[in-house]
Amino acid sequence: MNYESVMKLALERAFYFPSCEVYGDAQAGFWEYGPTGVSVKNKFLELWRRELVRRDRMLEIDGSQIMSKSVFEASGHLGNFADPIIKCKKCGLTFRADKLISEIANVEIPESADLEDFDKMIQEKNIVCTKCKGEFESAKKFNMMFRVGIGPEDEEAYLRPETCQSIFVDFPRLFKTMRGKLPLGIAQVGKSFRNEIAPRQSLLRLREFYQAEIEVFCNPGKLNELDKFSEIENTTLRIQISDDIQVMTCKEAVEKGVIPNKFVAYYLGLLTEFYKKTGIDMEKSRFRKLGEKEKAFYADVAFDFEVNTTIGWLELVACNYRSDYDLSSHAKKSKEKFEVMDNDEKVLPHVFEISMGIDRSLYTILEHSLKEDKENERMVLSIKPYLAPTHVGVLSLVKKDGLSEKTDEIYRLIRTKFDSFLDHSGAIGRRYRRLDEIGAPFAITVDHQTKEDNTVTIRRRDDMAQERVNISELESILAKETAYP
Amino acid sequence: MNYESVMKLALERAFYFPSCEVYGDAQAGFWEYGPTGVSVKNKFLELWRRELVRRDRMLEIDGSQIMSKSVFEASGHLGNFADPIIKCKKCGLTFRADKLISEIANVEIPESADLEDFDKMIQEKNIVCTKCKGEFESAKKFNMMFRVGIGPEDEEAYLRPETCQSIFVDFPRLFKTMRGKLPLGIAQVGKSFRNEIAPRQSLLRLREFYQAEIEVFCNPGKLNELDKFSEIENTTLRIQISDDIQVMTCKEAVEKGVIPNKFVAYYLGLLTEFYKKTGIDMEKSRFRKLGEKEKAFYADVAFDFEVNTTIGWLELVACNYRSDYDLSSHAKKSKEKFEVMDNDEKVLPHVFEISMGIDRSLYTILEHSLKEDKENERMVLSIKPYLAPTHVGVLSLVKKDGLSEKTDEIYRLIRTKFDSFLDHSGAIGRRYRRLDEIGAPFAITVDHQTKEDNTVTIRRRDDMAQERVNISELESILAKETAYP
Ligand SMILES: [Zn+2]
Ligand SMILES: [Zn+2]
Repeated sequence: MNYESVMKLALERAFYFPSCEVYGDAQAGFWEYGPTGVSVKNKFLELWRRELVRRDRMLEIDGSQIMSKSVFEASGHLGNFADPIIKCKKCGLTFRADKLISEIANVEIPESADLEDFDKMIQEKNIVCTKCKGEFESAKKFNMMFRVGIGPEDEEAYLRPETCQSIFVDFPRLFKTMRGKLPLGIAQVGKSFRNEIAPRQSLLRLREFYQAEIEVFCNPGKLNELDKFSEIENTTLRIQISDDIQVMTCKEAVEKGVIPNKFVAYYLGLLTEFYKKTGIDMEKSRFRKLGEKEKAFYADVAFDFEVNTTIGWLELVACNYRSDYDLSSHAKKSKEKFEVMDNDEKVLPHVFEISMGIDRSLYTILEHSLKEDKENERMVLSIKPYLAPTHVGVLSLVKKDGLSEKTDEIYRLIRTKFDSFLDHSGAIGRRYRRLDEIGAPFAITVDHQTKEDNTVTIRRRDDMAQERVNISELESILAKETAYP
Repeated sequence: MNYESVMKLALERAFYFPSCEVYGDAQAGFWEYGPTGVSVKNKFLELWRRELVRRDRMLEIDGSQIMSKSVFEASGHLGNFADPIIKCKKCGLTFRADKLISEIANVEIPESADLEDFDKMIQEKNIVCTKCKGEFESAKKFNMMFRVGIGPEDEEAYLRPETCQSIFVDFPRLFKTMRGKLPLGIAQVGKSFRNEIAPRQSLLRLREFYQAEIEVFCNPGKLNELDKFSEIENTTLRIQISDDIQVMTCKEAVEKGVIPNKFVAYYLGLLTEFYKKTGIDMEKSRFRKLGEKEKAFYADVAFDFEVNTTIGWLELVACNYRSDYDLSSHAKKSKEKFEVMDNDEKVLPHVFEISMGIDRSLYTILEHSLKEDKENERMVLSIKPYLAPTHVGVLSLVKKDGLSEKTDEIYRLIRTKFDSFLDHSGAIGRRYRRLDEIGAPFAITVDHQTKEDNTVTIRRRDDMAQERVNISELESILAKETAYP
């Protein structure tokens, strides 16, 4: 299935849709999760908590989205977090300079190039406005943070462009009050905000988006001293090396020097174990080591976790070894102490970051799970039962003869424990197909036999097999079948 | 326990703490949830989903926080959502005019009064700046929404001041794609933003805060036709009537005319059932019907759910019958159709809103759960096990003799399923007390006998009773004891 089929499903079954869509001034780059989308998102995050946060004894925080100016002076965002833009003199339309040059003239020019280089290239290649053929003003920098004015004095603050900054500034208090010990992972899920010039492709480039970020604080002198590495050493990673994707265990990757140390390999291994359980086709995934020019300025070593989709490779996670860039910047600016004790050694911790894009991950799960079953004329979202937006449909074969009441009764038994959908109306085949499309792994049907012997049928989404079970068994069957792995 | 003891706990045990606190330009009214706070919040929200959203077959969405200007023109926020403020001519300090007049001169003046009335009162009562005794400029209106500029053209948009507006504008799509039927509840949890002049008391008046809002769309002609009312008719409500709190069932409240119809009574009943399970002392709670002057301008009937704390009555939930105010405003402004079919009748639904403040609810749970156990020299957070930030501590009696390894092994068995805290160091009594303080209902201790017969002790937080159980039973015991009701 491709981007368009996923979009159709998303809109028709309320996975996601544009924000403020009834209004003409709705801005691009803002999307809403509908009920089916929220349900998958919440379950995805619970899996993330289980497989990363809890498994690795990380701390999870939830910080303010609006943060003070000093934070972004220290982080470098106020100075550096800007895109080169050019504006049409005639129609006023604005473009990302690097993207337009690459699209029109097929010349790659890094977004960090000098502003004059963009102007020069635009002149050389005779690039004009794609809308009105007008000429461009000189290129300028456009900061991607959203400014917010606080209080009646309109004091300067910003919506965070990444969730990790709260983790850095909160580190001293968290380490102390939670009796931290290095290495210490601190995690946060939440919204981040970037004033993109050209948001596009629904969930894939948003102005307001969800991140799940993990910052692991470590002693840079001990990156190969990690007992728990043995838990993950045999996990296989798929790593892009030159033109090949090579498959090797975490242990081999460290031994061959493909990954610089056990510490980084451990977290790439954990991340792999997590994504395996999301149902993404891991045969289409890779870790790609970023070259010197691609890396963020603060990163010593960087691997992107990418997954191939019908619209190309998507970066789902950025893994950056940020060294002490963040803590030393905040320490310097705030004059607070960010060093901590690691046994008897005083260290300013280094940071390894696992920055996950939730929206893109959800898109990829949907694309890889959606299948057309031509034989049975149905679309099936073969999503893992523990991620399914609806665990179970509860259907009456017909409404009459008291079946409707019996169905309601069963629904009331399970509704708080499972995501259940009660459905009385329409042909039973149509109701099954609708459940298949939103990925409900089970459908319970109440028929005339139910009234005689208290049994119902359970239909399985993937093979459409039906089985008769006693109502008293339902809860334990569903609990087992929808449990997290 | 009072506000100060809760604050001490919050800061020392990372329930919540000020945002950007290492910086001097940190703004008031922004707080972070630390690891213990996040854990309680997530569990509180799961309970809310079970007892309200799933139980009542509501739809949950998650919309953008930045919304377009038209939304707030239609909702009335751009015109009306403003506080009267006065600014000192000398030192520049700004005050809420109504609050200052009430504090200094003890005169109540509604915040919606004409601006000249504030100026007159300030002159009459000779009110001057409390900081520098300077005189004030004329009163003016200060809109409490945060403006955000979108794209290079800085187009006007706003951070939502309440989550419900997305529910209203998304209603046509949701009703259609989710095959809605009236009455239909649509819910949303998320951040809202208000540029308060005087944020204060940590979680109690924030500029960035969490709401869990439910909007129930209904046919105004059928407010007494509600089959499911029988599920809740015997739930007792505590309703403030004149100077008394009267206790009556939902059914009685409707019969006596204290609540105007079954529809409203049903949701107040559901809300009561929910809060009972949070561990808040319901004997300290009340529904208070708002008078004509207190109600929001769009509300026909309004009840606040309030709970008494050591700093007075706190409004945790606002329940407003908003009639068709919202849908008709958005229909008019957007020219979209908001009517839907209710069987054969075309109706513009009315809305009943249950607007819950999450931060205040969490504060109240903490205050009502925190106890000093003088006899045993400990502070105990007697929070419900299913809301506890840590379900279980896993402790080695001593580190040596292989007990440490055995403890790690048990920890690994349960860590993904329960919020577990591994603790090897310090006197065992101190470790128990620390677990008591963060409300961990159970502590597992590994001792020398463990190595002989694979048993551990389980200690219960509230009565400190200890019991020996087999390691193989741990998972089922914990699952049972920490399950949602
Ligand atoms: Zn143009
Ligand atoms: Zn003054």
